[in-house]
Amino acid sequence: MYALKVTRAEDFPEWYQTVVRDADFAESSPTRGCMIIKPWGMGIWERFQQEMDRRIRETGHENYYFPLLIPLSFFAKEAEHVEGFAKEMAVVTHHRLKAIDGTLKPDPEAELTEPLIIRPTSETIIGDAFSKWIKSYRDLPLKMNQWANVMRWEMRTRLFLRTAEFLWQEGHTAHVDEADAMEETMLALEMYRSVVEEVMAIPVVCGEKPENERFPGADRTYSIEAMMQDGKALQAGTSHYLGTHFAEAQNIRYQDKDGGMSLAHTTSWGTSTRLIGGMIMTHGDDDGMRTPPAMAPRQIVVVPMLRNKPEDDELKQYCKALVAELNKGSALGSPMRAYVDEKDARPADKRWDWVRRGAPLICEIGPRDAAGGNVTFIKRNMLREGDKIKSHTLSRSDFVAQAPGLLEAMQKELFDEAKARLDANIRGDLTSFADIEKYYGTEDEDGEFKGWARVQWSRPTGAALEEVGTRLKALKLTIRNAPMAQPKSFGPCIFTGQPAVEEILIARAY
Amino acid sequence: MYALKVTRAEDFPEWYQTVVRDADFAESSPTRGCMIIKPWGMGIWERFQQEMDRRIRETGHENYYFPLLIPLSFFAKEAEHVEGFAKEMAVVTHHRLKAIDGTLKPDPEAELTEPLIIRPTSETIIGDAFSKWIKSYRDLPLKMNQWANVMRWEMRTRLFLRTAEFLWQEGHTAHVDEADAMEETMLALEMYRSVVEEVMAIPVVCGEKPENERFPGADRTYSIEAMMQDGKALQAGTSHYLGTHFAEAQNIRYQDKDGGMSLAHTTSWGTSTRLIGGMIMTHGDDDGMRTPPAMAPRQIVVVPMLRNKPEDDELKQYCKALVAELNKGSALGSPMRAYVDEKDARPADKRWDWVRRGAPLICEIGPRDAAGGNVTFIKRNMLREGDKIKSHTLSRSDFVAQAPGLLEAMQKELFDEAKARLDANIRGDLTSFADIEKYYGTEDEDGEFKGWARVQWSRPTGAALEEVGTRLKALKLTIRNAPMAQPKSFGPCIFTGQPAVEEILIARAY
Repeated sequence: MYALKVTRAEDFPEWYQTVVRDADFAESSPTRGCMIIKPWGMGIWERFQQEMDRRIRETGHENYYFPLLIPLSFFAKEAEHVEGFAKEMAVVTHHRLKAIDGTLKPDPEAELTEPLIIRPTSETIIGDAFSKWIKSYRDLPLKMNQWANVMRWEMRTRLFLRTAEFLWQEGHTAHVDEADAMEETMLALEMYRSVVEEVMAIPVVCGEKPENERFPGADRTYSIEAMMQDGKALQAGTSHYLGTHFAEAQNIRYQDKDGGMSLAHTTSWGTSTRLIGGMIMTHGDDDGMRTPPAMAPRQIVVVPMLRNKPEDDELKQYCKALVAELNKGSALGSPMRAYVDEKDARPADKRWDWVRRGAPLICEIGPRDAAGGNVTFIKRNMLREGDKIKSHTLSRSDFVAQAPGLLEAMQKELFDEAKARLDANIRGDLTSFADIEKYYGTEDEDGEFKGWARVQWSRPTGAALEEVGTRLKALKLTIRNAPMAQPKSFGPCIFTGQPAVEEILIARAY
Repeated sequence: MYALKVTRAEDFPEWYQTVVRDADFAESSPTRGCMIIKPWGMGIWERFQQEMDRRIRETGHENYYFPLLIPLSFFAKEAEHVEGFAKEMAVVTHHRLKAIDGTLKPDPEAELTEPLIIRPTSETIIGDAFSKWIKSYRDLPLKMNQWANVMRWEMRTRLFLRTAEFLWQEGHTAHVDEADAMEETMLALEMYRSVVEEVMAIPVVCGEKPENERFPGADRTYSIEAMMQDGKALQAGTSHYLGTHFAEAQNIRYQDKDGGMSLAHTTSWGTSTRLIGGMIMTHGDDDGMRTPPAMAPRQIVVVPMLRNKPEDDELKQYCKALVAELNKGSALGSPMRAYVDEKDARPADKRWDWVRRGAPLICEIGPRDAAGGNVTFIKRNMLREGDKIKSHTLSRSDFVAQAPGLLEAMQKELFDEAKARLDANIRGDLTSFADIEKYYGTEDEDGEFKGWARVQWSRPTGAALEEVGTRLKALKLTIRNAPMAQPKSFGPCIFTGQPAVEEILIARAY
């Protein structure tokens, strides 16, 4: 009766929506394409923010906040950039409502002389500020970040993965030259890898995007790519070296040491609430979510097995004392986050709420545990033995002593499980395009698992690259990135037959 | 050469703008009425968020995130509410741009069927969700909060105090009855008082707003009011008991214990980046800002007096070791926030940067300090003795030992100074409207100090209250609130001559 209404194998997309909704992550809102993020989803985003923000600061960036609305003319300055975003911009045209024939409408007398765009990303308005702030090489590097909401009007939306509004951080930096800007671009990518792998327990492949998948206006785009349980890739973070494109468009120049004027080299990089969707599709199982301990807003949840009897008070006291003791300790570098669920609901319902959310350790304490000084608990990442729920019992002092170690082990187990899946599902044996067609071109039952392929190519550009894209698209494939780790020698390009120069990953993707 | 270009006495509004800009708080943006919040301002807002968020969670609220955009029709449901906000709403009407005659314009084919409003506040969309989530008395109270940006199209804007876009938190709760909702309303007000007085060191008066100053749609509005150094009042936070107005408009009903259906009673409450403006106008002096230690992103800033000489390296090491030692300690409940300013700039310029920002303790360490194992520092809140900067020297170990106490003392000194000003400038001797006219009606030189007045009234309503408003407005006055602490007996109302029932505060206000 408590199981999810659908399993991953039955219908992966439907399973995903079910987990998001039933595990208190988010729900659709009456505003088209936008979501309401609920406490467990929000708590996970806040954990991500803490971890990412710390790394951003420790590497010398400072937080700013720029306006939500950007004048339309700012976008027109960088042609590729505006082309990339114009089709999905929310446009503010009026600043007042008025009752017209009894109905509230935008007041025609309050039309803006220049429309304002809800930021889809902030390069243009931040670049404008950089052009004012940067005068000399002494002002460089300028390294900033902001946490913000952005809007891209998507036609087909899915909670967390693709929503019209999403939350993100966007880093923007300016540097004296390419070398310094490239170092920053790679530093940001490494920060992303670190948080996503070490905190979210999602293994990724770092690499460079091909020319046709670059951020609009970038010289080079790097990404971290994660494999979901249905074999699809999810781009989990991107870092862009923008060259001098935005500096030219917005006149970001500095006086160099010799007194001459030079263009700054800029970067930008971002991660978003999309990662929460990626985490669910990496770690969820048929009982709901399994939240990595380092990301869990509540790591240990204690459910008192109350029975509306006189003993209840004593039981509650026992649970509260246990939680107080746990919160004094420390796991994963910070005090453990333990919590007693005192909600007015049936204990079994509460237990399943926390199973679905994926609280790492769920303790169910009954009068017998309290009397015996014990703790009965389940480990969410290994919930079942066969079909049965597997529970463990320890003395209270042993549980308190072992909890940090249990959480650390679960963090590692979740990562290892996902890493093994990633490693096992990147095919290196598809050495011709015919092989690719054979593997990916076979009739797909809904949800049939297809992994990634590691193939070699000659890195064509322009029309030739476009043709590659078309051939892949016919198989619903895209190039994810060219991984940092490259082979020492190359065979022929699977697309052109010419000598290959690079290994790339191809996959179906979100 | 380092002084601000204007003093408080010369021109208070101009002084305020100068501090905001020169102390790295914020600057105007190219988007009309919106600001760019810079690192020191952002760091202070983040400190506020930490302190407020902790209290919000500890009192049983959970964080959500609701959409930025609200369908226009949602506002039409509560008549007073929409009337209060319709004149300042930013309206999204299109979801795409298109090049028309070579110019990018909103695409006429991408006009929204229903315009979307950038939230000025979120009662309407959150109320809609409440109506779906709340089914039974067991679902109550429902206590949520969100941190968000909101937009109110103001015609005359001032950095932090009144901007078209601002950052805030908005709490929204639903309860079984008035008593429970009123308890929540007062709890929120007390959280605000606690953060504003104890962390921001700004003394406030808590009280209820008169009928004509209520939040649009509220039954009762409470505020905390602070006195700025020019004598004006700043509303620093508000908490609203909304009765069943929003519950009726949005059908928030629950099944009560007897099985009947009842309307929920709701509350909402908010504090915003406006508080940063209030903090500057409370604690700033003619050298810039004096940031209360509990709010300072950097509490102790060390400026090495580098001279481009070989000794510089040793000096830097000494400074870094000092900061590392300070950061291990703890003050005001968390590790001290100490920092070495290694920027490539003249030490004297750096010192004045930190004086303007108001870092509480600023250490200037020269080779002689390093050699002697000493720390030379200034206390920002008592920077000068006469015209001269007053510096202190302690041995390094004494400084490390005393720093937490120094910071705590400065926090108290700033609060006490502001509290003494507040207490000294609320006049209780203006017992007739003629007295009020005489005091406030005299020709105002720009910047002449006028405090507040505590007067008694009969609490008129409707047209009589409107008349009171008009009479006060002629003197540029408003009623701030009816303080919680009320006298035991009353004389006549200064407006109507009838027996008074309440004491209220009147003041000029931001």
